[in-house]
Amino acid sequence: FISSQKKSSILCLIASIFDAGSGWICVLMVGIAAGATAGIIDISARWMSDLKNGICADRFWLDREHCCWSANDTVYKDADCSSWTTWPEMLGYYHQSGFYYIIDFLCYVLCAVAMSGFAVSLVRVFAPYACGSGIPEIKCVLSGFVIRGYLGKWTFVIKAVGLILASASGLSLGKEGPMVHLACCIGNIFSYIFPKYGNNEAKKREILSASAAAGVSVAFGAPIGGVMFSLEEASYYFPLKTMWRSFFCALVAGIVLRFVNPFGSDQTSLFHVDYSMKWTFIELVPFACLGIFGGVIGAFFIWCNIRWCRYRKNSKILGQNPVYEVLVVTGFTAAIAYFNPYTRRSASSLIKQLFDRCGPEDYMMDLCDYQNKTVSSDKVDDNYHTGEFGSGVSTAFYQLIVAFACKFVFTVFTFGIKVPSGMFVPSMAMGAIAGRLLGIRVEGIFGLMQKNGHTGYWACQIGKDCVMPGLYAMVGAAAVLGGITRMTVSLVVIMFELTGSLEFIVPTMVAVMFAKWVGDAIGVSGIYDAHIELNQYPFLDNKGEYPYSTVALQVMQPSGGNTLHVIEQDQMTVGEVEQLLNETTCNGFPVVVSAVDMFITGYCTRRDLQVAISTGRKTSPNVTTNSKVYFSSNVPEFDIGGSGPSPLRLKKILDLAPMTLTDQTPMEIVIDMFRKLGLRQILITRNGRLLGIITKKDILRFMKDGDSI
Amino acid sequence: FISSQKKSSILCLIASIFDAGSGWICVLMVGIAAGATAGIIDISARWMSDLKNGICADRFWLDREHCCWSANDTVYKDADCSSWTTWPEMLGYYHQSGFYYIIDFLCYVLCAVAMSGFAVSLVRVFAPYACGSGIPEIKCVLSGFVIRGYLGKWTFVIKAVGLILASASGLSLGKEGPMVHLACCIGNIFSYIFPKYGNNEAKKREILSASAAAGVSVAFGAPIGGVMFSLEEASYYFPLKTMWRSFFCALVAGIVLRFVNPFGSDQTSLFHVDYSMKWTFIELVPFACLGIFGGVIGAFFIWCNIRWCRYRKNSKILGQNPVYEVLVVTGFTAAIAYFNPYTRRSASSLIKQLFDRCGPEDYMMDLCDYQNKTVSSDKVDDNYHTGEFGSGVSTAFYQLIVAFACKFVFTVFTFGIKVPSGMFVPSMAMGAIAGRLLGIRVEGIFGLMQKNGHTGYWACQIGKDCVMPGLYAMVGAAAVLGGITRMTVSLVVIMFELTGSLEFIVPTMVAVMFAKWVGDAIGVSGIYDAHIELNQYPFLDNKGEYPYSTVALQVMQPSGGNTLHVIEQDQMTVGEVEQLLNETTCNGFPVVVSAVDMFITGYCTRRDLQVAISTGRKTSPNVTTNSKVYFSSNVPEFDIGGSGPSPLRLKKILDLAPMTLTDQTPMEIVIDMFRKLGLRQILITRNGRLLGIITKKDILRFMKDGDSI
Repeated sequence: FISSQKKSSILCLIASIFDAGSGWICVLMVGIAAGATAGIIDISARWMSDLKNGICADRFWLDREHCCWSANDTVYKDADCSSWTTWPEMLGYYHQSGFYYIIDFLCYVLCAVAMSGFAVSLVRVFAPYACGSGIPEIKCVLSGFVIRGYLGKWTFVIKAVGLILASASGLSLGKEGPMVHLACCIGNIFSYIFPKYGNNEAKKREILSASAAAGVSVAFGAPIGGVMFSLEEASYYFPLKTMWRSFFCALVAGIVLRFVNPFGSDQTSLFHVDYSMKWTFIELVPFACLGIFGGVIGAFFIWCNIRWCRYRKNSKILGQNPVYEVLVVTGFTAAIAYFNPYTRRSASSLIKQLFDRCGPEDYMMDLCDYQNKTVSSDKVDDNYHTGEFGSGVSTAFYQLIVAFACKFVFTVFTFGIKVPSGMFVPSMAMGAIAGRLLGIRVEGIFGLMQKNGHTGYWACQIGKDCVMPGLYAMVGAAAVLGGITRMTVSLVVIMFELTGSLEFIVPTMVAVMFAKWVGDAIGVSGIYDAHIELNQYPFLDNKGEYPYSTVALQVMQPSGGNTLHVIEQDQMTVGEVEQLLNETTCNGFPVVVSAVDMFITGYCTRRDLQVAISTGRKTSPNVTTNSKVYFSSNVPEFDIGGSGPSPLRLKKILDLAPMTLTDQTPMEIVIDMFRKLGLRQILITRNGRLLGIITKKDILRFMKDGDSI
Repeated sequence: FISSQKKSSILCLIASIFDAGSGWICVLMVGIAAGATAGIIDISARWMSDLKNGICADRFWLDREHCCWSANDTVYKDADCSSWTTWPEMLGYYHQSGFYYIIDFLCYVLCAVAMSGFAVSLVRVFAPYACGSGIPEIKCVLSGFVIRGYLGKWTFVIKAVGLILASASGLSLGKEGPMVHLACCIGNIFSYIFPKYGNNEAKKREILSASAAAGVSVAFGAPIGGVMFSLEEASYYFPLKTMWRSFFCALVAGIVLRFVNPFGSDQTSLFHVDYSMKWTFIELVPFACLGIFGGVIGAFFIWCNIRWCRYRKNSKILGQNPVYEVLVVTGFTAAIAYFNPYTRRSASSLIKQLFDRCGPEDYMMDLCDYQNKTVSSDKVDDNYHTGEFGSGVSTAFYQLIVAFACKFVFTVFTFGIKVPSGMFVPSMAMGAIAGRLLGIRVEGIFGLMQKNGHTGYWACQIGKDCVMPGLYAMVGAAAVLGGITRMTVSLVVIMFELTGSLEFIVPTMVAVMFAKWVGDAIGVSGIYDAHIELNQYPFLDNKGEYPYSTVALQVMQPSGGNTLHVIEQDQMTVGEVEQLLNETTCNGFPVVVSAVDMFITGYCTRRDLQVAISTGRKTSPNVTTNSKVYFSSNVPEFDIGGSGPSPLRLKKILDLAPMTLTDQTPMEIVIDMFRKLGLRQILITRNGRLLGIITKKDILRFMKDGDSI
């Protein structure tokens, strides 16, 4: 007996540990799956992206870098290796004549179009929700809005495959936003394994918040940044007790991704930056300028993109032919990008190059073609150079300007088409280009001043102690990304983790701060909020401050001459309720003691009422149109035993604790309650009597009107 | 005319920009002041701390390190330099005989006792709130509890001076917790410059949250960690929109501190760790053990400390003689610490030493006395050694064990005495000692295995690729700090910023996670929550989850036979209201239409009522005990013009929007509303009629009872 009791108590203990640990197990699984998914996507996208140029002759499953590595080619240089076969070479054209280039160009464009065409077809046929970045929708989902199937299995599979194809096609899009969506799909799918999370929307959102953090973590290799992103941008009700779990999830995902090691390197961060970069305080001026530029270009980008998306929504031709749109955009992008070395390469490798300093091994590149390179004999010390440019830098300068314009136009037209497409990397690429351009200019000015004998402040080693163009590129990337997304803390933390050095927090922060201020001052909201507004999702922004002096009475329904539709507790018949349901469209009805004195007893949703009445009619033949509906428990005697239609008892569907406020409550408090408690409606009373109702829709309309006043 | 209009619109614009920017200006000022304060405290504390040993002969205002630097002493070694004069030397004893040591010892102890005596006297006489760490109280203040004068000017001045004295006296306490309190004082003082923040408690809390972040930022040089700490630990209602501003504040404070440069070094972080440290996955086992140890020792520490604090509270002798207690504790601490090299030095320099690897310059120290040191000729590469110990390591090992025990006992008795005293650095020191001890042991085991030919996993360069005792010290510090404070994300982020390398996030996280799990499983709450409970502050924990099935009806007052005290809207006289005020102690009264039907019109606080009645009696002689009190605006005609006592109109003190809920609302929702909306009371209704009231006290009592069930 004792042993059986022991056994059961041990079982109990195990069960309670499992219950307490199920959240941890769930996020552990989510983290592992998210890391693995990200690794597979990264590897596949690289391989497919190289497929536009050629194929590994002896082992087709290798991308160019690994193909050349494994070929053990001693004369291997970045541009070429013997195992890697370009398409013209496959067709037998080895001489690099004009014809060779035409075939190369055609293959490049055709591959790109084929890939994106395949991606858009998959999305169209199997999972329409798989398009876009997904972050605006995730924001809405985490705020309590339910989009059925948005986080389902099919969306996950198609979005993953589509993302590989789309990013390989050379379209100006990033993998980062969709990665967040994919991670949330994983979180949603896994949460059904644990009933505690699968059956409770609020608990499930905890898992989804953690998943969003894991998504950013794998996208950038930034676990802390992921948590901050989830906290700042994605999550609406971020329960602090889950922060730790989110961090765990993000970290596990990051470690798994490192094991998969898609980039074949030992570095922890995506765009690893050399530690020797320095900056002086005077440089905060150009950094602030980059921030202002980021704010302006970000606002302009959002304006253009939203205009185009609105046009697409309203246009018949475009709206009904998303596949053709994708094909045309891909064709143009590929055809134009082909001719510029900076647009042709992938955005993330472009960013990596722009962030880098010019080391001795880079002096053959255009971007690092300086006069007076000083190569010190000590290998540890960095090489540096003066601010005098060679001809290569000028060439690179103009190519970068063209690249910036192309990236801008491409991305405006790309963000919103029906393939999985993110925003982060393209905007970082734009910013990195702009930053590097400014860095080169500032370097020239500093160099000129030093040459003319203005020493003092300027007596630093250009490109080492000060005016590192790579640092400008980094700051520029943060500025433009900040201008477009209006992220703040999370962006700084992500940049910090990307580059792995605390030294650069201040420049990044200055740029992001100016970008946000300028962007907000221009009055265009961030890209995600703009898309939420464009799609008219019911999203209640939880950051704004609304110093309204209005009170609830002025906002509530019914206003003016309308009447409030209520249900009387024990006095209405089934027919009357059905009539009320047919005549109105509201989602629920307050239940009152009687329509005369309007004392609230509860609230009942339309859906519950419909289900209860139809069930009642089905199960009991005596429930007819004339049956009385009872919401209280005191059903009179004569109605039960009597010969008339039997009464319908609906006490159990009545919400006995509806949220009520008086009519004099300031709207500020009302909005605060909607935000913090996630309500759908509040009943408005005066002296205990029901006056009206305020729903989430009323709040949204009020906030919009309030903005325009 | 046009120009004047222009002028006024420009003025308007400036005013609106100032209004929008005032929050930023305020946190900027807070950041600068916090950084400067921290710098001054650090420098002064160093100087005063060295004063226990001696004085700089030619320039008394220099501490030992600067004294020796500026003396340009070529034969300078760490232990001695000619300019630095110890106290026995000042008294003419140059020969290091027994008498020299006795004088040295006596001076050391006397200086320590004098300093701490001065500190405790200052606190006693001028600002009793300046004692302790302040973090438990800051948590309560940020949750809405008002402690008058807790964040005032005097508290700030006395706490700053007392902190310098107390930390110089060699007591086992840290400067970090009090730094958070000081930063919050600064925030409070500066918020009064801006009426928008000074006059609104909720807005002021935004500034205080940012200040808390700045406090941690200057304490550890960790701006991101500061924001996370403020978010996770200190702030109750952390509005996400202020996160960015908190980050700015923390960063400004950090930059200013770096300008002040109290440590005279170029490093960004307090305990800078070498980058070459590595760890292997097998080492996660000892790291997890450290975490478990941290959880156990943390819980034991809290238990001892709380027992002692409770004893102090109840004991007559101790409670009334805090000065003597401080003197005795300081005397014992100084006398015992004097004889152990690891307890004698300051805790932060001890931590720095324990975190460090054993470089070639350290091989003369006990802690780094290894056999078979391999000194490579390449200066860049790190030196390493095998796991075979010299005799110095064994000596150090036993000294460290003693040091650990001393630190533990000292800190138990120190945390809670009436001087400014923090927890962070002492607990990190304990953890670092424990970690280093384990690291040395593991190193020995690995070394033995390698010697016996067990290669494979163990074939790493001990102390370089694996088993770096410094890393164990770091992980141990995080584990014990985690066990005592139960911080999670913020602790990992702070450790990450302290050491400046992403490489160590995983070990730290594992240790912190185990420490928290074990600590929570033992069932002792974190040190701050334990002290909040000890002092019975009205703090509603916002992290726990309470799956109660109770409804509001069961918790509300009045319960059982008591009656609810209400005010009738237009029917009571001044005398009746005064009688009600005298007979009851509640903080406020619901105002109803009439006591018969109990329809709520509003809520009125006791304080407002008292003030309004006494003002009414003073200003108008016709307001007598028989005057009628009107809360509605429809005061009858006859009462105004009549000869009787003139009516008292109290409409403006009536809160027309009291929060109401029905009696069937689950307590889970009620608690949630109290937490998220920061309420003090909720009125409970049924069918529109007032039934009772639930105050914050009821909630606290209910939660406590719920725990014990």
